[in-house]
Amino acid sequence: MAFGWIDEQAEARRRAGLVRTLRPRPARSPLLDLASNDYLGLARHPEVTEGAAEAARTWGGGATGSRLVTGTTELHGELERELADFCGFESALVLSSGYAANLAAVTALAPFGSLVVSDAGNHASLIDGCRLARGTTQVVPHADPDAVRKALGTHDGPAVTVSDTVFSVDGDAAPLAGLARACREHGAGLIVDDAHGLGVLGDGGRGAPHAAGLAGDPDVVVTVTLSKSLGSQGGAVLGPAAVIDHLVNAARTFIFDTGLAPAAAGAALAALRLLRREPGRAARAREVATALHTRLTAEGLSAVRPDAAVVSVRAPSPERAVRWAADCREAGLAVGCFRPPSVPDGVSRLRLTARADLTEEQIEHAVDVISRNR
Amino acid sequence: MAFGWIDEQAEARRRAGLVRTLRPRPARSPLLDLASNDYLGLARHPEVTEGAAEAARTWGGGATGSRLVTGTTELHGELERELADFCGFESALVLSSGYAANLAAVTALAPFGSLVVSDAGNHASLIDGCRLARGTTQVVPHADPDAVRKALGTHDGPAVTVSDTVFSVDGDAAPLAGLARACREHGAGLIVDDAHGLGVLGDGGRGAPHAAGLAGDPDVVVTVTLSKSLGSQGGAVLGPAAVIDHLVNAARTFIFDTGLAPAAAGAALAALRLLRREPGRAARAREVATALHTRLTAEGLSAVRPDAAVVSVRAPSPERAVRWAADCREAGLAVGCFRPPSVPDGVSRLRLTARADLTEEQIEHAVDVISRNR
Ligand SMILES: Cc1ncc(COP(=O)(O)O)c(C=O)c1O
Ligand SMILES: Cc1ncc(COP(=O)(O)O)c(C=O)c1O
Repeated sequence: MAFGWIDEQAEARRRAGLVRTLRPRPARSPLLDLASNDYLGLARHPEVTEGAAEAARTWGGGATGSRLVTGTTELHGELERELADFCGFESALVLSSGYAANLAAVTALAPFGSLVVSDAGNHASLIDGCRLARGTTQVVPHADPDAVRKALGTHDGPAVTVSDTVFSVDGDAAPLAGLARACREHGAGLIVDDAHGLGVLGDGGRGAPHAAGLAGDPDVVVTVTLSKSLGSQGGAVLGPAAVIDHLVNAARTFIFDTGLAPAAAGAALAALRLLRREPGRAARAREVATALHTRLTAEGLSAVRPDAAVVSVRAPSPERAVRWAADCREAGLAVGCFRPPSVPDGVSRLRLTARADLTEEQIEHAVDVISRNR
Repeated sequence: MAFGWIDEQAEARRRAGLVRTLRPRPARSPLLDLASNDYLGLARHPEVTEGAAEAARTWGGGATGSRLVTGTTELHGELERELADFCGFESALVLSSGYAANLAAVTALAPFGSLVVSDAGNHASLIDGCRLARGTTQVVPHADPDAVRKALGTHDGPAVTVSDTVFSVDGDAAPLAGLARACREHGAGLIVDDAHGLGVLGDGGRGAPHAAGLAGDPDVVVTVTLSKSLGSQGGAVLGPAAVIDHLVNAARTFIFDTGLAPAAAGAALAALRLLRREPGRAARAREVATALHTRLTAEGLSAVRPDAAVVSVRAPSPERAVRWAADCREAGLAVGCFRPPSVPDGVSRLRLTARADLTEEQIEHAVDVISRNR
């Protein structure tokens, strides 16, 4: 049996209570959603879904090829220009997912002989980018510019530091200004993944790098996803035009992948325009996160103070976390549940996401359900 | 300058004539398309684009989270059941791209201590899968079951062989029956990427593994993309239910990636249903490829006899290939142009794709343009 070894792993997972299963949801879920990354509540917005529908009708169901062959449409170009402009960068490159964007940025900017300094709490896609890159990776303690400085000091030649701007598990922000200073002292580049910052942080949701005054800097490259605040699918790399041109020529997950589907590009573009028109959505998402944190803490729960829209609540054990999330679901509330091996430190959590469109009553109800079922 | 080293590489590319640039196309291109992977001509089919539009309206612009959190909808489940059923497998798992599907399948099925035997002509996404996998990779000569047998004979413990079913550059088919035999002799698994087989090969387009009698075998895993014959975006892994469950629990590009956008799932599902209703499209794509090859060869061009819908024509040099493709485009014909570093053997080619909806006149015209501009 070629795949017989799988059964042992499955059995071990069962014993440890770590089996993951897919739970398909209906089109209109009765649950109150505090689990998705739809921070601005735009995935269901009629302008966004109509943007998807219209793009599919105009441009087709798929891009039909690599963006270097037939897969680049004027719609992709438009999205790239507006994203770059909004976030304050010279150029942008749209890829089929945020995951692909991270693989592209890290691999293309960490050639043979280079050093990649990577935060210990980075997202799986950045870690896989480091693993695929030809450069040597050094993992440094979480959110620690001094450790970055020290690591960069050991290396001659090209170097980049790689970090999430907002860490996906605990929702804490990276010390961007400190990281940028450490990089500059050593002539290193900074690549940051603003998946959870775009649409939430910075002026009108322009993202964490914009808020930190780093947007458009020649040694800063930012990746974003179109799948969270922008309610769609896809990813993008933002940076100097020369860096983006380099990616077009060197990034395998760009060159050898079919272009992003027109519907996804259309939805993201509609969401971006909506956010420009209604910049208050970004501040509202942060406000909801703060309200959740304040009230959960008042109930005696151990929650991390949110820097963006993710609120992480500690659970005593993986089993209790799973049970807690299941009880919340039973009571009509969807919350995320992170446990090993998806958490860097072995601590299981409930992961709540604030959405700009949650009402006061919904926030109160959510806190009530969570604390009642602890 | 952190990214100063990029400029030297850009200059080297310019000197070598290997600069790649994006050429956005309008919604209604005046070019005759022999460059896309839209083999069945479905990307623009109204049922497919309406499938995308309807799904976006019903399910939203994006999946809003990992499929393990909020990103699995009943639509994803439906697509998985129908894909598995059509291709003859027990289970299927849909991912955000074919690239992600290949990374998922290879990394999850090649654990520490295992051997991965990989064909020298494999697609970049399989190669990246091998690089990311914890197992040890051995690259074997192209399409050579004996080499596979020999490589497997050197190893104790779990092993898999990884191959495209139809190679993307030359369009030649892998010796699937021979590969399966070699694997079975050694208790190894077989992972094949049917990106260019699904919709084109096998009974009614059920794919190369189905044609080879391997569909549903317990030691065979197939990856497909939704971005070529199905005119959408996304990928899937097909195999035994236990293998698919394992991927749900272990594949990082599944667990840590946002689910496929509903519009893409809807478009792919509509295309799949259309193909079931009109199975003749698969045979017609192969017929068009054969016609292209026969006529190009009659004109004295060096083309590889197509096993599926890709027709590869050799060019004397990278510069001449680029010039040839540009002249065709000037004359109203879009063709692909593959050159280093995208070709394994350094030989540049025009890459033509047959589409089931090409007319006899279009085929004739295409051959005329290509041979006139050689
Ligand atoms: C920090 C971070 N980066 C990248 C990604 C991947 O983006 P996508 O899901 O759009 O592929 C995610 C989550 O999915 C994420 O949380
Ligand atoms: C053989 C092969 N496998 C996988 C892929 C990746 O699929 P996708 O573009 O859907 O990500 C491609 C091309 O894009 C391919 O040619």
